[in-house]
Amino acid sequence: MKKLWGGRFTKTAEEWVDEFGASIPFDKELVEEDIEGSIAHVTMLGECGILPKEDVEKIKSGLLTLLEKAKKHELEFSIAYEDIHLNIEKMLIDEIGPVGGKLHTGRSRNDQVATDMHLYLRKRVNEIIELIKELQTVLVEKAEEHVETIIPGYTHLQRAQPVSFAHHLMAYFWMLERDRERFTESLKRINQSPLGAGALAGTTFPIDRRLTAELLGFDGIYENSIDAVSDRDFIIEFLSNSSLLMMHLSRFCEELILWSSQEFQFIEMDDTFATGSSIMPQKKNPDMAELIRGKTGRVYGSLFALLTVMKGTPLAYNKDMQEDKEGMFDTVKTVTGSLKIFTGMIATMKVNAAVMEKATKQDFSNATELADYLAAKGVPFREAHEIVGKLVLTCIEKGIFLADLPLAEYKKASELFEADIYEALNPYTAVNRRNSAGGTGFAEVRKAIEKAKKLLR
Amino acid sequence: MKKLWGGRFTKTAEEWVDEFGASIPFDKELVEEDIEGSIAHVTMLGECGILPKEDVEKIKSGLLTLLEKAKKHELEFSIAYEDIHLNIEKMLIDEIGPVGGKLHTGRSRNDQVATDMHLYLRKRVNEIIELIKELQTVLVEKAEEHVETIIPGYTHLQRAQPVSFAHHLMAYFWMLERDRERFTESLKRINQSPLGAGALAGTTFPIDRRLTAELLGFDGIYENSIDAVSDRDFIIEFLSNSSLLMMHLSRFCEELILWSSQEFQFIEMDDTFATGSSIMPQKKNPDMAELIRGKTGRVYGSLFALLTVMKGTPLAYNKDMQEDKEGMFDTVKTVTGSLKIFTGMIATMKVNAAVMEKATKQDFSNATELADYLAAKGVPFREAHEIVGKLVLTCIEKGIFLADLPLAEYKKASELFEADIYEALNPYTAVNRRNSAGGTGFAEVRKAIEKAKKLLR
Amino acid sequence: MKKLWGGRFTKTAEEWVDEFGASIPFDKELVEEDIEGSIAHVTMLGECGILPKEDVEKIKSGLLTLLEKAKKHELEFSIAYEDIHLNIEKMLIDEIGPVGGKLHTGRSRNDQVATDMHLYLRKRVNEIIELIKELQTVLVEKAEEHVETIIPGYTHLQRAQPVSFAHHLMAYFWMLERDRERFTESLKRINQSPLGAGALAGTTFPIDRRLTAELLGFDGIYENSIDAVSDRDFIIEFLSNSSLLMMHLSRFCEELILWSSQEFQFIEMDDTFATGSSIMPQKKNPDMAELIRGKTGRVYGSLFALLTVMKGTPLAYNKDMQEDKEGMFDTVKTVTGSLKIFTGMIATMKVNAAVMEKATKQDFSNATELADYLAAKGVPFREAHEIVGKLVLTCIEKGIFLADLPLAEYKKASELFEADIYEALNPYTAVNRRNSAGGTGFAEVRKAIEKAKKLLR
Amino acid sequence: MKKLWGGRFTKTAEEWVDEFGASIPFDKELVEEDIEGSIAHVTMLGECGILPKEDVEKIKSGLLTLLEKAKKHELEFSIAYEDIHLNIEKMLIDEIGPVGGKLHTGRSRNDQVATDMHLYLRKRVNEIIELIKELQTVLVEKAEEHVETIIPGYTHLQRAQPVSFAHHLMAYFWMLERDRERFTESLKRINQSPLGAGALAGTTFPIDRRLTAELLGFDGIYENSIDAVSDRDFIIEFLSNSSLLMMHLSRFCEELILWSSQEFQFIEMDDTFATGSSIMPQKKNPDMAELIRGKTGRVYGSLFALLTVMKGTPLAYNKDMQEDKEGMFDTVKTVTGSLKIFTGMIATMKVNAAVMEKATKQDFSNATELADYLAAKGVPFREAHEIVGKLVLTCIEKGIFLADLPLAEYKKASELFEADIYEALNPYTAVNRRNSAGGTGFAEVRKAIEKAKKLLR
Repeated sequence: MKKLWGGRFTKTAEEWVDEFGASIPFDKELVEEDIEGSIAHVTMLGECGILPKEDVEKIKSGLLTLLEKAKKHELEFSIAYEDIHLNIEKMLIDEIGPVGGKLHTGRSRNDQVATDMHLYLRKRVNEIIELIKELQTVLVEKAEEHVETIIPGYTHLQRAQPVSFAHHLMAYFWMLERDRERFTESLKRINQSPLGAGALAGTTFPIDRRLTAELLGFDGIYENSIDAVSDRDFIIEFLSNSSLLMMHLSRFCEELILWSSQEFQFIEMDDTFATGSSIMPQKKNPDMAELIRGKTGRVYGSLFALLTVMKGTPLAYNKDMQEDKEGMFDTVKTVTGSLKIFTGMIATMKVNAAVMEKATKQDFSNATELADYLAAKGVPFREAHEIVGKLVLTCIEKGIFLADLPLAEYKKASELFEADIYEALNPYTAVNRRNSAGGTGFAEVRKAIEKAKKLLR
Repeated sequence: MKKLWGGRFTKTAEEWVDEFGASIPFDKELVEEDIEGSIAHVTMLGECGILPKEDVEKIKSGLLTLLEKAKKHELEFSIAYEDIHLNIEKMLIDEIGPVGGKLHTGRSRNDQVATDMHLYLRKRVNEIIELIKELQTVLVEKAEEHVETIIPGYTHLQRAQPVSFAHHLMAYFWMLERDRERFTESLKRINQSPLGAGALAGTTFPIDRRLTAELLGFDGIYENSIDAVSDRDFIIEFLSNSSLLMMHLSRFCEELILWSSQEFQFIEMDDTFATGSSIMPQKKNPDMAELIRGKTGRVYGSLFALLTVMKGTPLAYNKDMQEDKEGMFDTVKTVTGSLKIFTGMIATMKVNAAVMEKATKQDFSNATELADYLAAKGVPFREAHEIVGKLVLTCIEKGIFLADLPLAEYKKASELFEADIYEALNPYTAVNRRNSAGGTGFAEVRKAIEKAKKLLR
Repeated sequence: MKKLWGGRFTKTAEEWVDEFGASIPFDKELVEEDIEGSIAHVTMLGECGILPKEDVEKIKSGLLTLLEKAKKHELEFSIAYEDIHLNIEKMLIDEIGPVGGKLHTGRSRNDQVATDMHLYLRKRVNEIIELIKELQTVLVEKAEEHVETIIPGYTHLQRAQPVSFAHHLMAYFWMLERDRERFTESLKRINQSPLGAGALAGTTFPIDRRLTAELLGFDGIYENSIDAVSDRDFIIEFLSNSSLLMMHLSRFCEELILWSSQEFQFIEMDDTFATGSSIMPQKKNPDMAELIRGKTGRVYGSLFALLTVMKGTPLAYNKDMQEDKEGMFDTVKTVTGSLKIFTGMIATMKVNAAVMEKATKQDFSNATELADYLAAKGVPFREAHEIVGKLVLTCIEKGIFLADLPLAEYKKASELFEADIYEALNPYTAVNRRNSAGGTGFAEVRKAIEKAKKLLR
Repeated sequence: MKKLWGGRFTKTAEEWVDEFGASIPFDKELVEEDIEGSIAHVTMLGECGILPKEDVEKIKSGLLTLLEKAKKHELEFSIAYEDIHLNIEKMLIDEIGPVGGKLHTGRSRNDQVATDMHLYLRKRVNEIIELIKELQTVLVEKAEEHVETIIPGYTHLQRAQPVSFAHHLMAYFWMLERDRERFTESLKRINQSPLGAGALAGTTFPIDRRLTAELLGFDGIYENSIDAVSDRDFIIEFLSNSSLLMMHLSRFCEELILWSSQEFQFIEMDDTFATGSSIMPQKKNPDMAELIRGKTGRVYGSLFALLTVMKGTPLAYNKDMQEDKEGMFDTVKTVTGSLKIFTGMIATMKVNAAVMEKATKQDFSNATELADYLAAKGVPFREAHEIVGKLVLTCIEKGIFLADLPLAEYKKASELFEADIYEALNPYTAVNRRNSAGGTGFAEVRKAIEKAKKLLR
């Protein structure tokens, strides 16, 4: 078949080249954005007197018909028209006749596709911001229930100091808050209109770029036509922000998986988010948490794919840039799905507060209390640290914990120890006393929860 | 609906979790391998007396029916049965009744999916090896036509020394030869059978792993059942090898694109592999070369995605590893397509030998000849280099080339210069005289082509 | 030798483990930030009555002595004290005696190192923002000189439409503007104080985190102590922003390299930024542009490295996170150096305006003018496109350009063509008439330059 | 100062450009290889009559003097001579006079640097292969001690089936075996000589490339001079192989870290490989395991960096390729160090066999035994699975394990259950009975250990 742009070509391209080069199998995802962009474009062509009103009306009504069909998934795309733009143009001409060919006046596929992607990503990023907020909301709710639930705090996966479980959960709240902030800031750059940049140089037609930008809800226009069609920063920035978000989720997943193990047993995943084994009926696998941890890889991969694509390509548009879409679509799907699942997992997980608390009593994670106790009495921290190190060693040799060591032994180590050390060694007290700003003390945790709630309003 | 593994579960998983977790939308690609693996497995179960012959026959005939349907694309997969294995098992039971449930005896989905992927990749890598060979063949043919076609050789994209165009093309032959070597070596590790490793520990059934391996054409079996189900090295190795191959193609693409520019005009792409512009009818864009250069990114991305997935995951199978498939499938498709297109591009491209040759005469890329001339007469290379540098500067000031400089001027620079320097400065001579082993001298290039042909036999 | 934290350990760690684990070989880069952080910390300990004034004064004066020495590069670090924090503490104790051991009261290395990095990155990112601005300034200056210098605009590395060289340069201005915007926004998250978060849980000492934050010039404090010590987002965000910046520079480098080739000859790099060849005296290689293009790889690599490190690590600090520094330091050095070199390259490059202009006249990049000409007279764009395609074909067959085709031939193609087409075909006119907003028309380019200048004020 | 290649340049490059572009700060690592390559080269120049014997002897003796000094670290390099090649040449001329300038006859820095890197990597890869073997040896030794030590086998970090601890350790043996195989295969491509390829085209001097290859212990020569100087496959392949190796180690690290936690307590790291905390004296952190897990990131990063550098660069040498070295050096150091540390960690770790065994008795990981038990009696596997699922649920409700359930209850679930099920439920029996090839049965594990020992001979 003949190609729309084939005027000067003497050969018909072979089918398999067409297939390899065609973007319609994936860029059909942009169908609504493409039509909406065209409607704005043709409206402007009419307003500026570039096309006669009657042509504009015909084209607009044709586009609206197609938009309606698109929403009902009634359009059928053909690889013969390689991309979403030519497919829609072909359908338009079929619908309203040769006048449809006037739609492309003062426009190029280069600014058109960029416009589509800006529109698409604006919509999706706004959705993602909402989904992050939902996850944050569930985290705050869960945290409120568990301010005084005590869990070992870990460094190096070794029990370090007991903390409020709410405080631990809220650490993720603040990570997500940064994610939300970054996605929100990126909207500034996403919501700029490249439409009217033409192939790369602008156009001789007296178009009004600010009008199309306004019709499409853009905040502004690209200031340079070459940049407008060459820029994929906004997609890379989206992939970077998504990578950071997935990194956060992957850390949380790692913890959910650990906590779900027989060794920890801190939580139990709801059946909805866990699965069994085909061969081991007793298993309850935290599948969704593992899957999201794994999906971090694909998002990183898409980021690196596009960074690679753009590296060293000269201005302006090159066909390499067709590779910008699939990774973006896939990441939208991955991030959106992961956030939804996560919100569900957190909302429904069963917290075994008793197991958590028990864990805080069977180790030496209260040793810092002793060091701080001595330091507060004027012992240089390094010396205090050394004294406590020896006491821990004594306990290990005796097979007991610090709370079990008699005061006499403490006195031997330092005359400064008094009977009140046993209170200091109590995990509950230890947590509650850490009331430095942003610390795990219950009062501080409650303050943080209030602050968080305000941010979610 | 009830899940196959749902015995102990009290809740029905919600639809969207199912969708997020299901692999059937992509692992259906493994349908033939999955059935073939099952046929081998059940045959073995019969041979080993684990299942009665009549059960084996029933199951086998059911599987053969499904295989036939699979080849005709008549099977319909359901997300309710999450993956290819459970889908096929369900279809089998529908086909032959509850006896189908015996197929899974002494097997787990963990060793089953690994088997499928080994079978799949063996087939695809063998195809890729063939496709590389085809591209190499076309390169050798093209090289044979152009042994004495002279082109500027570049370093830093500056003309450095003229070379035989055949020699330049053959540089890619040897890169591809290494690719072929690496893919071939990887087959050793791909073609090992994990089947019989069970969930991770092997099985108590008296199975014969070597028999299934033999039936499936494997070279050997994994020596350790935990390794067998946890290993994804073979896929990462495939992605690494593919990344290297795409890197080679991307370099070649860069050159094809440069050579097709109005500034170079060394070649003309056949219309089949070039496209026009929707707004600029005069354009003939080397689209396929650009696209392949761009697709390098997605292959790198898939490599990094899987490296990320596997990083830090404990043994044995974790759900994260479900993420091993899509990147593999996509890379198979990308590499296969790129090689095919490339072979076509090279076979059909028009070489403008005259333009190339002219380019070798309009610069200073013959300056090395002068330095070598002096060095051959005993001038330390560094001194020779300096003398020639000054001669070049003289020419630039005069707006002439080295061949235009009168002998008197040469004599002024060094008494060692004689009239035979003009012969040395001739690009054709310059190329032809570089007969060090593997050099661009015509005799050497012809030898290399003969060597290459032997490797392709 | 005995380790500071070795109280309970019975064995001396072997030298090579020490070496492998020590961070002092690279984290000594943080020496000033570390001491400044300690000064703020001890000041606060005094203000809050946690340490007696005289201890505070002693410690402060000891730290100031060390800071002075650090600035003169007089400190000698030892691998025996593994990291910058323990090295400084040891030196402090050597300087002022055991009271130095009190400095670490209410602090942990976990919040200390995070503080150091926030301080470090704040400083460097501010420098980078300034360097971007300098490069933008040079671009604007160069653009001002070349508003009416005409160069072929490329898509697919094929000449597409002529553009103003200033317009082309300004495309990079806007990319850099986005870079500057992103770096500036990131400062918000960099400039938060983790100090006082302790090991992970806060502290029982009545510290004042807001005071140390204020003393160190931070905008605020981390709201959650676990997040404060676990967060490396700010470094990843820095690496992402740097990757985007380097991607922009790599594209520019690609163009500078192309333009410097004998085939293009659009520009000549100043000798300062080009080098010769050890064997080919005539070469003038755009080395710096190539090197910066290459260095894009290492910045991408550092981004990917840290994303990998953080993936799937549980809260809070893990030793893996020690790997956050070298990539950050290296990227600071790379980005800073690249920007400086770039500014120099652009400022000194020689622009061959005549060669550029000549190039705009020897191809069909004015074909769009014809299509627009017809479209403006009411021919549907697609038809216009086809007519022009045939005219181009005619010219190619005759070996002439569009401006050489007689009017009669034009008339044959379409009756709408008139004598004024020759004016439209003139590249200068073609450029100048593209006065859509952000287009390459001279008036628009001048407006954009004014806008840019305002942004740089 | 004047540059060696500065003949035609009119300006002195500014200091900071020199610094940015110089490779001597890192390529000095290649000093020995560079001198050895030169010795071979000059020897050949003599043998081929290109240089007079006395010049050859002088140059050789000068080079030997430098080599000796290099080994004693007595050479001082200068950034003024940018790279290792020019530094050595300058020192040679200083040592023996202008005749030193003849060394570079028939050679270019392009083939010289490639030669250095091939020599360097050959040496390092051989060392790495030996280090892998040492780690494998320690693994086999550890495995031999623990054939009958039982540990829970995990999938999804859930206890799945008990396995022999030796079997688990041996899974890593086989991963390392593949690593060793891949590194060994790569030597084939590393050990090829590019020397004599000149700048890119070979040389007109009658050199003997096979002689230098032989003198340097290469297996063969690059067949194409352009490929010889453009190829960095061997480094990328090294980085890929290293990434896979680090990925394996990172998985092992993850397990060592888990096993060292208070929750698992399966092993205790020797003090040499663990560290304490500055604030929490009781901590014993598996620092080395965490650090190696983290260092996986930097190796991945270096791989990605070089893949990016090479993407889309035209032939032959471009300055971008200078970026090939630092990542290679760093990876050599990282991999070498990680392997050494790992061997030490495994050799010295304390295995808590009793804790491991106890863990196998306090869960449902023997449920598969029941399903297999029924399947062996003819129940279709899927049905058996469902029956067992219900039994597990019953136990969970009663708060007991499967071994505690009375036979009567079993009978209720299926009449096929007999008293011998309790034997089947015993973890020791369960492990021992998995004697399928490569399974965890003790006999199979012992066979695998014998096989492994043979491979290590």
